[in-house]
Amino acid sequence: MRYFWLIPLLLSCCFPALTFAQNSSVNSAVNSVLQQQVDAWNRHDLEGFMSGYWNSPDLIFFSGAQETSGWQATLDRYRARYQSQGQQMGKLEFSDLNIQALSPDAAYVLGEFHLTMPDGATPHGLFTLIFRKFPDGWKIVHDHTSAAK
Amino acid sequence: MRYFWLIPLLLSCCFPALTFAQNSSVNSAVNSVLQQQVDAWNRHDLEGFMSGYWNSPDLIFFSGAQETSGWQATLDRYRARYQSQGQQMGKLEFSDLNIQALSPDAAYVLGEFHLTMPDGATPHGLFTLIFRKFPDGWKIVHDHTSAAK
Repeated sequence: MRYFWLIPLLLSCCFPALTFAQNSSVNSAVNSVLQQQVDAWNRHDLEGFMSGYWNSPDLIFFSGAQETSGWQATLDRYRARYQSQGQQMGKLEFSDLNIQALSPDAAYVLGEFHLTMPDGATPHGLFTLIFRKFPDGWKIVHDHTSAAK
Repeated sequence: MRYFWLIPLLLSCCFPALTFAQNSSVNSAVNSVLQQQVDAWNRHDLEGFMSGYWNSPDLIFFSGAQETSGWQATLDRYRARYQSQGQQMGKLEFSDLNIQALSPDAAYVLGEFHLTMPDGATPHGLFTLIFRKFPDGWKIVHDHTSAAK
């Protein structure tokens, strides 16, 4: 009966409530990916920005009611909108970030994006992100972004 | 050393990969909530439809780039848009549902909504839902819906 001490440990692992330490660790890791994305955007490094996304054909990106499937198509969409002739990337900021850990390897994030463009325009809107933890770190597997009209 | 058989069980519990059975069970439970919502909408039972949402001030609803906070405000928004004078609820259908279990108590759903209104209009769009499991069942804790323009 010496191994009865394992039972509470077993139970605490089987029930999915995250400990405070796990929660903090998820929030910190996800926040760090978002900060790296903002930094990459603001040095006009779209590939660096895209490293926050799951590099998979199964990445799903909703921009309003438009769906884009896959990492490459999502990068192509960003290139067309922000790096093609006559387009600008501007300065990106995120605000009101609400990061919710769902398990040790899953989280979602709600937030607002704000762009400040060279011509003074300030496109902005809301986003919902689903993050999963992979061997190479936390990545966005789904992004639903809605720009304010 | 009789309790060494506990170690693989302990490890399988601590690592968050869902078993096939858990995955199926989550998908089935979440799908059932969505079907109940469609049924409630189509009998014009907005409270029944809203029973799929977390009844909490912390429910967060994004309609495009507009945020609504809390269950009551979300119900009020639906009432104003679909049950106030001159408004109609129409017939609701969901399609292309993509349900992803994230843990035994969390999942997200991507999908399309289609309304058929009495005047022949067909509003439609995309949604992202975050579900959590509560003692009274699976509930949407966040909805991000974007209507096609």
